[in-house]
Amino acid sequence: MRRTLAEKILALHSGEEDVTPGRIVRCPLTLVLANDITAPLAIKAMAKMGADTVFDREKVVIVCDHFTPNKDIDSAEQVKFCREFAVKMGLMNYFEGGNVGVEHALLPELGLVGPGDVIVGGDSHTCTYGGLGAFATGLGSTDIGAAMALGETWFKVPPTIKVILTGTLAPFVGAKDLMLKLIGMLGVSGALYKALEFTGPLCAELSVEGRMTMANMAIEAGGKVGLFASDEKTVAYAAAHHRPGAPMLAADPGAAYEREVEIDATGMSPQVACPHLPDNVRPVEELGDIAIHQAVIGSCTNGRIEDLRAAAAILKGKKAAKNVRLIILPATPAIWKQALAEGLLETFMDCGAIVGPPTCGPCLGGHMGILAGGERAIATTNRNFKGRMGSLDSEVYLASPAVAAASALTGVITHPAAV
Amino acid sequence: MRRTLAEKILALHSGEEDVTPGRIVRCPLTLVLANDITAPLAIKAMAKMGADTVFDREKVVIVCDHFTPNKDIDSAEQVKFCREFAVKMGLMNYFEGGNVGVEHALLPELGLVGPGDVIVGGDSHTCTYGGLGAFATGLGSTDIGAAMALGETWFKVPPTIKVILTGTLAPFVGAKDLMLKLIGMLGVSGALYKALEFTGPLCAELSVEGRMTMANMAIEAGGKVGLFASDEKTVAYAAAHHRPGAPMLAADPGAAYEREVEIDATGMSPQVACPHLPDNVRPVEELGDIAIHQAVIGSCTNGRIEDLRAAAAILKGKKAAKNVRLIILPATPAIWKQALAEGLLETFMDCGAIVGPPTCGPCLGGHMGILAGGERAIATTNRNFKGRMGSLDSEVYLASPAVAAASALTGVITHPAAV
Repeated sequence: MRRTLAEKILALHSGEEDVTPGRIVRCPLTLVLANDITAPLAIKAMAKMGADTVFDREKVVIVCDHFTPNKDIDSAEQVKFCREFAVKMGLMNYFEGGNVGVEHALLPELGLVGPGDVIVGGDSHTCTYGGLGAFATGLGSTDIGAAMALGETWFKVPPTIKVILTGTLAPFVGAKDLMLKLIGMLGVSGALYKALEFTGPLCAELSVEGRMTMANMAIEAGGKVGLFASDEKTVAYAAAHHRPGAPMLAADPGAAYEREVEIDATGMSPQVACPHLPDNVRPVEELGDIAIHQAVIGSCTNGRIEDLRAAAAILKGKKAAKNVRLIILPATPAIWKQALAEGLLETFMDCGAIVGPPTCGPCLGGHMGILAGGERAIATTNRNFKGRMGSLDSEVYLASPAVAAASALTGVITHPAAV
Repeated sequence: MRRTLAEKILALHSGEEDVTPGRIVRCPLTLVLANDITAPLAIKAMAKMGADTVFDREKVVIVCDHFTPNKDIDSAEQVKFCREFAVKMGLMNYFEGGNVGVEHALLPELGLVGPGDVIVGGDSHTCTYGGLGAFATGLGSTDIGAAMALGETWFKVPPTIKVILTGTLAPFVGAKDLMLKLIGMLGVSGALYKALEFTGPLCAELSVEGRMTMANMAIEAGGKVGLFASDEKTVAYAAAHHRPGAPMLAADPGAAYEREVEIDATGMSPQVACPHLPDNVRPVEELGDIAIHQAVIGSCTNGRIEDLRAAAAILKGKKAAKNVRLIILPATPAIWKQALAEGLLETFMDCGAIVGPPTCGPCLGGHMGILAGGERAIATTNRNFKGRMGSLDSEVYLASPAVAAASALTGVITHPAAV
């Protein structure tokens, strides 16, 4: 059998021989994840099923990252509910308070996810770990409850779309732009229940963080997973993050793909997803003067250290526009400390930014930067659905950290080369 | 006429000769302040009065510090309403986004308030500026609306209670402890519509920041104002904060006080206000084992650089207790940057703290650290009313930064000397 990367990982874990698209496979899970929004639902579902223990207290992970530091009484009660469950079950990977990071930035950093894993999470951006070569996907909270109890779930094997990344990246163009471009080409349903497999010569040039940025947004094209082969870079990343000896995994030559999509980066500009869908993508120079009230740099998509470095390179020595709230949320405590050590936080503060603690915060309209009616934000986040960051009459434009930083300086959506 | 300090300042501004307790005086205002909660009410009140301009666009100040970075759509709309008013009126001191600090820490830093001023604010802790020798008090939002339009208001001259601070402060005992002790002695209504005037040999030893901590909580004893004479320290502080040539002002010898209260600091322990009132004060060693879920260091009471230094001195090289959320909120961007430059933020992060942006946040149950039912916090804030920081079934203990820091390390309310 020649297998795509998704098929290969499912075959490895399920022990099934026939892992072709459309087949149902039962698969043991490497990790089951939930957060402060989804864990309470999953925990209640688990109880309803009559399950009173988790399958493995190391492998059921809860990260209270969405509405924390607790934004209100309801979110405080949710976190308390998670904590009581974590204590009762003896969970070894429960994150609350000062050790909270945005889950999809935190787990790779701690080596809790890695190449070849099969991971389900009660969060749609669980697909992020595909950047490390893991088959990782979001499930509804009831399924997460079952997975917490059983340590396995079923998957219908997805067909795979081969994405071929070629050409040369211009300055200020990177992983986020490639992914926005792809989502624009595929549409928000273009990869519905399909695997995206990222291939081509450009992959080697992308950092592991950049690959996670791309895999993170697979769901924005409807994808079940978004996968990069694990290579030397992945193995080195894993080794540096508590995962020594991670495997190199790639699709078999000659594997069957549903279709192929090529993105030639040569000549590509920074991309922006305009309201109100992530597939409404245009090159930044075609936007005209779009004034913004807020710029958000952070999230599971672009809150990693290289994102902060890219933003700081543009912001250094400059001031944010008078009427722009520039909100920077390093995605984990380790990233926060690294940014502090490198002088990035100083750069941000000198620029007039608000530097917050690690939280999903405004990305999902949670807190820490909600928009009023008529307000417009540029954000490095992953979704710009109507009302996503606040009022139904607000607008979110999605872009890279470089574009968000440049726009914060000028007050209009701006090509980073222009500041 | 021999006048108390409150009477002297009111006489200077009103031009009245008879400024004795109970008299009504009309007084021009040096500054009128409101925040993101009270400004919208004041602005609407102003419009209802038919006023379409503010008396002085330099002297009407709005600081959006309570629910910012915007915690939800409602708070975003409030801030937007403030912003539109600020733009329309051409306010020169409107604070939103990256230049927001907690108002009562921000205004002294910017020299917008100083010795001898008469200030009204749509916030009960406006009395903070009494630490600089300003007659400063909180008013309801309707009165603030009128004050914004007219630049004057009336006061009934308050009788003055003379507070005499004597003795020697033990290590880890300071301004917050003295004030908690006083509130415990007076009760929460003990100074209702009265001026507190802080005198005695210990005043000279207190920093200007410490004096602001004490004046800040005058309202917790019901006080109209809490006043320190302005001395060389005050003048130096003012000069270092955009207020050169500030006057030295003190009560006249022989002025008439309603009564005198002496606090002898000698032998005094750190003080803690227990639930659910600020006057339920006990020495820390009498509390027994009170386990906490959260420690908050920040607010207009204790979010200044000397507060952060005191906390860092205790936290340095240690770890917060596993189950304690240690939330540290430097009160202004300048304090945040100073704490960064001094390595305090690094100390906090190494300790496992959450470092947030300047915001009133959890102090008033706003956001950034709300308590669930059954949770307990120690906080350097100013009020521990039932439900103040979240659930009606939560509890808040008030203390100094040193006690809050020590308690964060042990997980129970702890004397700083014990860690």
